[in-house]
Amino acid sequence: MAGSPRRAAGRRLLLPLLCLFFQGATAILFAVFVRYNHETDAALWHWGNHSHAANEFYFRYPSFQDVHVMIFVGFGFLMAFLQRYGFSSVGFTFFLAAFALQWSTLVQGFLHAFHGGHIHVGVESMINADFCAGAVLISFGAILGKTGPAQLLLMALLEVVLFGVNEFVLLSLLGVRDAGGSMTIHTFGAYFGLVLSRVLYRPRLEKSKHRQGSVYHSDLFAMIGTIFLWIFWPSFNSAPTALGDGQHRTALNTYYSLTASTLSTFALSALVSRDGRLDMVHIQNAALAGGVVVGTSSEMMLTPFGALAAGFLAGTVSTLGYKFFTPILESKFKVQDTCGVHNLHGMPGILGALLGVLVAGLATHEAYGDGLENVFPLIAEGQRSATSQAMHQLFGLFVTLMFASVGGGLGGLLLKLPCLDYPSDSQCYEDQVYWEVPGEHEDTAQEPLRVEEPDTQA
Amino acid sequence: MAGSPRRAAGRRLLLPLLCLFFQGATAILFAVFVRYNHETDAALWHWGNHSHAANEFYFRYPSFQDVHVMIFVGFGFLMAFLQRYGFSSVGFTFFLAAFALQWSTLVQGFLHAFHGGHIHVGVESMINADFCAGAVLISFGAILGKTGPAQLLLMALLEVVLFGVNEFVLLSLLGVRDAGGSMTIHTFGAYFGLVLSRVLYRPRLEKSKHRQGSVYHSDLFAMIGTIFLWIFWPSFNSAPTALGDGQHRTALNTYYSLTASTLSTFALSALVSRDGRLDMVHIQNAALAGGVVVGTSSEMMLTPFGALAAGFLAGTVSTLGYKFFTPILESKFKVQDTCGVHNLHGMPGILGALLGVLVAGLATHEAYGDGLENVFPLIAEGQRSATSQAMHQLFGLFVTLMFASVGGGLGGLLLKLPCLDYPSDSQCYEDQVYWEVPGEHEDTAQEPLRVEEPDTQA
Amino acid sequence: MAGSPRRAAGRRLLLPLLCLFFQGATAILFAVFVRYNHETDAALWHWGNHSHAANEFYFRYPSFQDVHVMIFVGFGFLMAFLQRYGFSSVGFTFFLAAFALQWSTLVQGFLHAFHGGHIHVGVESMINADFCAGAVLISFGAILGKTGPAQLLLMALLEVVLFGVNEFVLLSLLGVRDAGGSMTIHTFGAYFGLVLSRVLYRPRLEKSKHRQGSVYHSDLFAMIGTIFLWIFWPSFNSAPTALGDGQHRTALNTYYSLTASTLSTFALSALVSRDGRLDMVHIQNAALAGGVVVGTSSEMMLTPFGALAAGFLAGTVSTLGYKFFTPILESKFKVQDTCGVHNLHGMPGILGALLGVLVAGLATHEAYGDGLENVFPLIAEGQRSATSQAMHQLFGLFVTLMFASVGGGLGGLLLKLPCLDYPSDSQCYEDQVYWEVPGEHEDTAQEPLRVEEPDTQA
Repeated sequence: MAGSPRRAAGRRLLLPLLCLFFQGATAILFAVFVRYNHETDAALWHWGNHSHAANEFYFRYPSFQDVHVMIFVGFGFLMAFLQRYGFSSVGFTFFLAAFALQWSTLVQGFLHAFHGGHIHVGVESMINADFCAGAVLISFGAILGKTGPAQLLLMALLEVVLFGVNEFVLLSLLGVRDAGGSMTIHTFGAYFGLVLSRVLYRPRLEKSKHRQGSVYHSDLFAMIGTIFLWIFWPSFNSAPTALGDGQHRTALNTYYSLTASTLSTFALSALVSRDGRLDMVHIQNAALAGGVVVGTSSEMMLTPFGALAAGFLAGTVSTLGYKFFTPILESKFKVQDTCGVHNLHGMPGILGALLGVLVAGLATHEAYGDGLENVFPLIAEGQRSATSQAMHQLFGLFVTLMFASVGGGLGGLLLKLPCLDYPSDSQCYEDQVYWEVPGEHEDTAQEPLRVEEPDTQA
Repeated sequence: MAGSPRRAAGRRLLLPLLCLFFQGATAILFAVFVRYNHETDAALWHWGNHSHAANEFYFRYPSFQDVHVMIFVGFGFLMAFLQRYGFSSVGFTFFLAAFALQWSTLVQGFLHAFHGGHIHVGVESMINADFCAGAVLISFGAILGKTGPAQLLLMALLEVVLFGVNEFVLLSLLGVRDAGGSMTIHTFGAYFGLVLSRVLYRPRLEKSKHRQGSVYHSDLFAMIGTIFLWIFWPSFNSAPTALGDGQHRTALNTYYSLTASTLSTFALSALVSRDGRLDMVHIQNAALAGGVVVGTSSEMMLTPFGALAAGFLAGTVSTLGYKFFTPILESKFKVQDTCGVHNLHGMPGILGALLGVLVAGLATHEAYGDGLENVFPLIAEGQRSATSQAMHQLFGLFVTLMFASVGGGLGGLLLKLPCLDYPSDSQCYEDQVYWEVPGEHEDTAQEPLRVEEPDTQA
Repeated sequence: MAGSPRRAAGRRLLLPLLCLFFQGATAILFAVFVRYNHETDAALWHWGNHSHAANEFYFRYPSFQDVHVMIFVGFGFLMAFLQRYGFSSVGFTFFLAAFALQWSTLVQGFLHAFHGGHIHVGVESMINADFCAGAVLISFGAILGKTGPAQLLLMALLEVVLFGVNEFVLLSLLGVRDAGGSMTIHTFGAYFGLVLSRVLYRPRLEKSKHRQGSVYHSDLFAMIGTIFLWIFWPSFNSAPTALGDGQHRTALNTYYSLTASTLSTFALSALVSRDGRLDMVHIQNAALAGGVVVGTSSEMMLTPFGALAAGFLAGTVSTLGYKFFTPILESKFKVQDTCGVHNLHGMPGILGALLGVLVAGLATHEAYGDGLENVFPLIAEGQRSATSQAMHQLFGLFVTLMFASVGGGLGGLLLKLPCLDYPSDSQCYEDQVYWEVPGEHEDTAQEPLRVEEPDTQA
């Protein structure tokens, strides 16, 4: 990793020092600003003399736990498909998400729940923080294997802030609806990561090409991630929606959409392969596009048919993206997208935003009845027409793309700071750079990687 | 797989075309028939002016998610015990279940929830569709490794219809109680698959015998499936039962039954082995029989002791089945049962049905109080005596066995259609036939399987 | 394992006979004593004419299921890090916990829920039984790889009783608060296991040293355990707390504490290693210490900052414990702690008890309002001052340490009964002693272990 003893010592210290500093800083900010909200505070809750059954906890905590599984198990294991990068995929997911939860509690709290000088927290802030961690992990997927943990921590530091600001602009200033985050999470996370990956372009990455694929068991570990993401996606999209019919409809739409993206992924994967065999990369990823594509619209009156159609389209586009677009992305656009987040989160996210434009534009008082207030409050209150809401949705997509691109560019510059350690071109996708790795088989100590100077990173 | 280029091209196209056709067909049927029910529709729900807390979503969605984990993670990984069939086990489970969810939403909808020309869907239809997918996956277990994905898709097409009809006959026409599906899911799925496997009997399957066992890590992946099935089985049985005491009692009974089947499986596995060592096949499968055996009776006043006794019996029968009956099933009855579904679902399912006969026959107004209405409405309303209910339960078992046998036979004929592709006798239990498989170790490309003409399949 | 045929036959029979005897005994006790409580009994529930929504099931079952995942998936896979002990780790966890659930239902029932000659069971008894199983599995972690299943069964038999008595003394006699079990589960389980391991000290355990580490994939399996434990720990601590704000606050505090222990673990792991690389053992274990350390205090008004600080401290202490204290524990104190339960459960458990002393001592009517009744009923009713409550908490810790130490000592003597089978010093951490193990690779039968006389065990 580092040729001189001094750099080695620096490397040894940088990650711990950053961790300790950030943990200290968030702890102080927590002490000053973060307080229980009226549903978690013993005195406030009992002062209100509520029935315990009315506590928000019982309506959102099961969904929160499903989301929590998606973030830590789903994303972590999905990225463990690489043959020698399982420790880093699962471990850095764990590390980055834990940091993002704290940091986004503060950022989102200042923007959304800052009253009387304090941030008030409860199950909704837990869900929102997990969502933000999801966006960070999507970006992580684009640069997986090519960055060190200190770099990743700085990326999260920046991305959490921009995520919060973008979300604030969309939801609070523009009145955009985006419960499941087709825009705020998937589009933002994907393009932030892709632009960042562009800035960190490595022309000689083929030196690590032999480690870029999977082995038999690593693909099965990745399927753990895929399946848990797939199963719990209905909870993801419905976790923050209005109670009652809102959560119910959102979960149902997402469930249907995912079945359709699964079928279209299997169909397309077999169709585009040389000999009709299925490709695990497609199954692991594109089958999930049905969850992304209804992120905006699943709380709306999308109809079960609409959910199927959306999912089918997303699975198709995503599979074709893996087959045909990812190679072009690298060769023409110099974007090395390790996990193909452009196919799973980027394009389906944009499609999801556009689907939201369409479904919002079709909203009528007749279709939603008194439920319109929950889904489109500005239309229900007469402040906006459905067409105007649709235009705002579309504008929200552009704002998101702008925040993501500028943010990814800034992130790339930040990660190129000379003090930061990263793997050399021939050491990418390799756990041993940052982990003590046991031998693959009993009684055989693995050869340590040769220590090299880091070379290119654009 | 296929000797001539034309067959290879046909194979390449058949699976995608079937997928796309079926997806198109279900999408059209969804567009015409499927609508949100009054708990998921924005206008209908708010028109009723309900408290959001009263939405069925909050009473059933957590159980639904547990069931969803069982179907996709549980069944998928349980079948991943085979050393070279993990991609297919997890992947085809994913594929088949996704299709079954859509298709059974329609079939069950027409039979159970068709009002005013429309099928109305909500969390209960999600649970029911997942249950149907469970039956399909049980049948899949009997023929695991010996069939191609296009065959499996046609099997699901047929089985979902017969499952729906059988369930309709039992629950709606005969007034049989079977919340957790000892009959409708386990007995039906097992015997459907076993008869189908009989029709597809391969006399020269020993050519693939070297691939029929597990390796160390594949057994651990299978344990992921086992444990998630075991943990969430209380949610499976209680997901569709009456709210309140009904769900509570069902979950509790199932929990106790599973602990007992686990203990008896460990005891019997050590007892019947050559040298007192435990056999992973028993632990992975027979320990779950406690969930199957109380599928019918766990919503009844089975008593905690009854649950323990039932679970103990089921674990014992199941373990002995794996040890002594599976070999006979192949040698004498020409049924090749890859996962031993006869031991895990067949015999415990029948036992569960009989236990339901017994417990229903013992029902009294005294034991159930006003709760009788929820568990045995026909007895509570005076239309039936407990003995008559018991007889109906028994008749339901025979109906199920008949539907399963005839259906499995039809399914076998369907899967022998000459246009369908399947692995040759020496290529069974091998992922490479249908998947692009990476090398087991870094930098070593696995030798591709030699292409052969398919040979026997009865 | 056993030199003479007679011992081999005895070994073959002992485990099954113990299992069958215990299962028979608990079944009889269930028949005599265990009854549905008023929330699970059809007649009792309907007699009360309750709304089904009021059933305890809906407030506790989702948390119960999360706890259930932790016990069976979390503990089981966390211990699967050993290269050749995955079957035993997952399998014996399954076996021990299943037995403990039945047995502790009886023991805890006699002590806590025995009314009118009967034990009344429902979702709360399920949660409590799972908690007790957790303590047994913690002790199992200390002796992992060095004991046979019959020994483990006897350990569970004893430990469940002592767990129940200790819990009864603390919660019922001393009025100690310990919802998440920093004392009753973690401290008790850890020191019981450590003292037991001391009694079973093996001076020549280095004969199995080559099997004591992990391999690449076993570390990934262990991460499945880690991540599921981490995710669901908020449900663990909040499962038994007061409804409403109580569960909500407990979950929130635990969530924050875990993020902090994760960050401090990553920081410390890199800091104390030779070359700045992260150690999987730390990440797998110490990152969880944040859940342990707030076991007592997370239901209290700990504040979000307090949760962060506690988690940070616990992760730090735990990581340092793995690095520096575990070797001393073996060399100086002759305690061979396979999983390092002293670092994950012992020290953080004690810290958690002390944190509970502190936070209880700071309780005021102002901070808790009318919620004081739920958290500190004896203070709310004026029977105790906050300081007195704190003293009782401290005394509870000493009681727990005493019960654990004496119990572990007794357990050690019990496990040294000459009729019990255990692996020899050169056969520790090896699945083949108790399991039929398939070859690691296709077509290669693994060499069976040489049969040896058991040698040292203290």
